[in-house]
Amino acid sequence: MSVPDSPEFKDRKALFDRMITVYGRNPVLEALEDPNLECFRLHLADSNKPAAVLQKMQELAVQRGAEVCFHGKRELSRISRNGKQDQGVAADIVCPGFRQLEQYLELPRQGRQRLLALDGISNPQNLGMLVRSAVAGGINGIVWSARGNAELGPLAIKASTGTLYRAPILRCENLGKGLAACQAAGFAIRVLGAEGSTSLLDAATGDTGSVVYVLGNETRGVSAEIRQLADATVSIPMASGVESLNVAVTAALIAYLDR
Amino acid sequence: MSVPDSPEFKDRKALFDRMITVYGRNPVLEALEDPNLECFRLHLADSNKPAAVLQKMQELAVQRGAEVCFHGKRELSRISRNGKQDQGVAADIVCPGFRQLEQYLELPRQGRQRLLALDGISNPQNLGMLVRSAVAGGINGIVWSARGNAELGPLAIKASTGTLYRAPILRCENLGKGLAACQAAGFAIRVLGAEGSTSLLDAATGDTGSVVYVLGNETRGVSAEIRQLADATVSIPMASGVESLNVAVTAALIAYLDR
Repeated sequence: MSVPDSPEFKDRKALFDRMITVYGRNPVLEALEDPNLECFRLHLADSNKPAAVLQKMQELAVQRGAEVCFHGKRELSRISRNGKQDQGVAADIVCPGFRQLEQYLELPRQGRQRLLALDGISNPQNLGMLVRSAVAGGINGIVWSARGNAELGPLAIKASTGTLYRAPILRCENLGKGLAACQAAGFAIRVLGAEGSTSLLDAATGDTGSVVYVLGNETRGVSAEIRQLADATVSIPMASGVESLNVAVTAALIAYLDR
Repeated sequence: MSVPDSPEFKDRKALFDRMITVYGRNPVLEALEDPNLECFRLHLADSNKPAAVLQKMQELAVQRGAEVCFHGKRELSRISRNGKQDQGVAADIVCPGFRQLEQYLELPRQGRQRLLALDGISNPQNLGMLVRSAVAGGINGIVWSARGNAELGPLAIKASTGTLYRAPILRCENLGKGLAACQAAGFAIRVLGAEGSTSLLDAATGDTGSVVYVLGNETRGVSAEIRQLADATVSIPMASGVESLNVAVTAALIAYLDR
């Protein structure tokens, strides 16, 4: 049995930190068919009725070197964390860019780093579109905690057009503590908010230090607790009295304007 | 009876060019409750069963100086153009920024103009988000034709968070002819496409002439017919092998990068 401090535990934990569990027949089949993705395990409910698509999944999993595991229906629900929509199928996909935030902060950094941190992005479509924009725009990491944000699941993967699998997701338990660790590591924390007196267009000019931009909930914005940590609040100038932008649009503007 | 060349006809046509017909009980009620919007006519099906919300709509319409018209169910479907979802209710809302593209091109232009033209934006959520981004980013006009694009209806209005009502929509019958007219009026036509050899980041620097950026269908991109008209094809550089961006994100990047 492995104990928390053993090397084996750390390796396994690092492996699991890099995995995303997808569920549902179409999402799992698509992931297995993508030659750029590595599947670690295919999980099937032993109550599934025989079906060609299940047979195909198993063949693909074997070809790709993934383990095929059968479970009772309840155990499968525990793995997918969505028994209502898993359709008796789940898969653990390896995402090479995923890691714990603290692990990322310990690594030597190459050049100026630009991170996004998510403080309550509750809509999975928004999360997926945000990831797609951030990856395309070369953002170095997306700080994500399970608490308060939409899950890294099928809806977000679909909205990300699959870019989520190769996104640099930095997991953390508690966003406040995570941001404090970033600050201690030399990152400036910038919160996005309409009340910000600094325009993103100005803040992003000639910047040389590493920075974390915090994006808040679609309705409530960034929480008070997180705003207290910020080195600056930046806003995006908007014409014609528009009050806010979609959070994925905001992420794209940060990624492409702050270079 | 008015004839096409009479001043009365032109006034009425100009008025109708500025109107958007919304339908469905919630969208109509929200429009009537918004003090910044002008309602021209409230349309009700005479087959509607009495309901408090209908009573409220009529009171608001009268307060706001709108005409209240009753119609047979089939006539109401003709007005809403969506009998399945109109719930017996429609309203003509005046949008001060809407006009015909040709009318816009005849007006004197104040400074450099930046337009977007839509070549087959089929998803109403994308259309609405695009409008929200373009309005916030100060785009001077959005060239829209009924043919090939999602309708300027309730789904797009919702996704635009209401900014569609005050967007500078430039209607045209045929996008190819509309773009040719823009070109004749001195606009450069730039098509967005992954195959473009010019980066938006470069194209947008130090530009002084007026320009139309053409955004294509979510899957197929800009059509061949329209690409032939283009003065240039511009692309947005994308990291990590991402193949495309959401069209609303693209619109925002144009609006904020080409200034």
